[in-house]
Amino acid sequence: MRKSGKNLKLTVAYDGSAYHGFQRQANALTVQQVLEETLGVLLGEPIVVAGAARTDAGVHAYGQVVSLWTNSRVPTDRIPPALRSMLPRDIAVVEAEAMDESFHARFSATGKLYSYRILNSARPDPLRRNYCWQIAKPLNMTAMQTALSHLVGEHHFGAFQSAGSSAKNPVRTLYKATCGQQGDLLEFQFHGNGFLYHMVRNIVGTVIDVGLGKTSLDDFQTIFSGRDRRKAGATAPGTGLYLLRVFYEKP
Amino acid sequence: MRKSGKNLKLTVAYDGSAYHGFQRQANALTVQQVLEETLGVLLGEPIVVAGAARTDAGVHAYGQVVSLWTNSRVPTDRIPPALRSMLPRDIAVVEAEAMDESFHARFSATGKLYSYRILNSARPDPLRRNYCWQIAKPLNMTAMQTALSHLVGEHHFGAFQSAGSSAKNPVRTLYKATCGQQGDLLEFQFHGNGFLYHMVRNIVGTVIDVGLGKTSLDDFQTIFSGRDRRKAGATAPGTGLYLLRVFYEKP
Repeated sequence: MRKSGKNLKLTVAYDGSAYHGFQRQANALTVQQVLEETLGVLLGEPIVVAGAARTDAGVHAYGQVVSLWTNSRVPTDRIPPALRSMLPRDIAVVEAEAMDESFHARFSATGKLYSYRILNSARPDPLRRNYCWQIAKPLNMTAMQTALSHLVGEHHFGAFQSAGSSAKNPVRTLYKATCGQQGDLLEFQFHGNGFLYHMVRNIVGTVIDVGLGKTSLDDFQTIFSGRDRRKAGATAPGTGLYLLRVFYEKP
Repeated sequence: MRKSGKNLKLTVAYDGSAYHGFQRQANALTVQQVLEETLGVLLGEPIVVAGAARTDAGVHAYGQVVSLWTNSRVPTDRIPPALRSMLPRDIAVVEAEAMDESFHARFSATGKLYSYRILNSARPDPLRRNYCWQIAKPLNMTAMQTALSHLVGEHHFGAFQSAGSSAKNPVRTLYKATCGQQGDLLEFQFHGNGFLYHMVRNIVGTVIDVGLGKTSLDDFQTIFSGRDRRKAGATAPGTGLYLLRVFYEKP
């Protein structure tokens, strides 16, 4: 069905701490609900947005993308500044662009870039409690980087897919899977053509077990090639996860 | 009056976003109130703490220090871990130490180290909204660093003292006043033997005017040597300010 009006692409940043994830839920506040309600007021008509990624509760975004159709005559470039005073301070629309009618935030996406932040310190840090996963014990960076290097390329990621995933085909391509360190802060980055449900958080949970020495590199390989989620590590908390960017270029 | 029991020094970190500053107030929630109430439960007696610095609403701390007297037999080293599950997640006691009877968090302090963070970007950043002061326009780092260098040493800081200050003598010594840059994040650091009411925030507000080209270096010098607060820049917001450390060594 062809929609009428303009097809808009909005880039959205948010602090996920106060929300039950991106996607609308009946009895909990989500980023999508706040966006749709606020856009509805600005654009003067009911708005439904399609999000590129369904980020979970507590997960943050610097570059979530949503698309929406509107008949409003509000100029596209006025939308981000107008929303600034209308949205709560933990959500911001940083860019708006009119797209051709084929564009869809989720279906047109060709890749995503996530980061995951670890605070590797025994000292409690109230300022970063919502923005990382704190690991008190020392981590073996070299072992973790080696484990991550095995994930790059096209693989069956069944071992890192949580129950509840709707994906029928768990084969994905990771272009990048790295971990860097700056002081007591570790940052993982994952760039791939698509991600299964909880895939980044399950990878991080399992790689951290490697860093802690609980899982050997051989066992990591066995878990990965065994494609069995029950053998992998725990799901890392949502607080450390950031959706940095969604790509629409053809790879 | 000599107090009975142990004289404890606690080092406290907090995210100031949800509090009306450190010091107790009749009708607003403060860090001191939460600390005293929680310590009262743990130690089994009413507790009054003395804080090294009266941080304002929204101001953060990695190294606030409080002292308190208690007759409790809870071992000193058990206090930080015990408080972990009792305090809200935005306040943490990171260290506890028994001191001799002369120690007082405020009166024994010989210096403090503050940092002030600026986000120098036009792009809204919901994730850092409570943790910095956002300046959209470009800043002249060299001019700001020159202005800061004039402040180092023993000076009359009347130009940077807000009304409401209780200090009779506005002469203070700054050992360090710097500004560094990493990407779009600027960090000021101020180490001094003492700070007047709003002194760091008033310095930052005025130095930012220098960085924006609104105030020349000559005018900055005139403002500083003129000792007249009305000539200086606006008070920078509390959200960007961090109490990093309180010193007790003799200089």
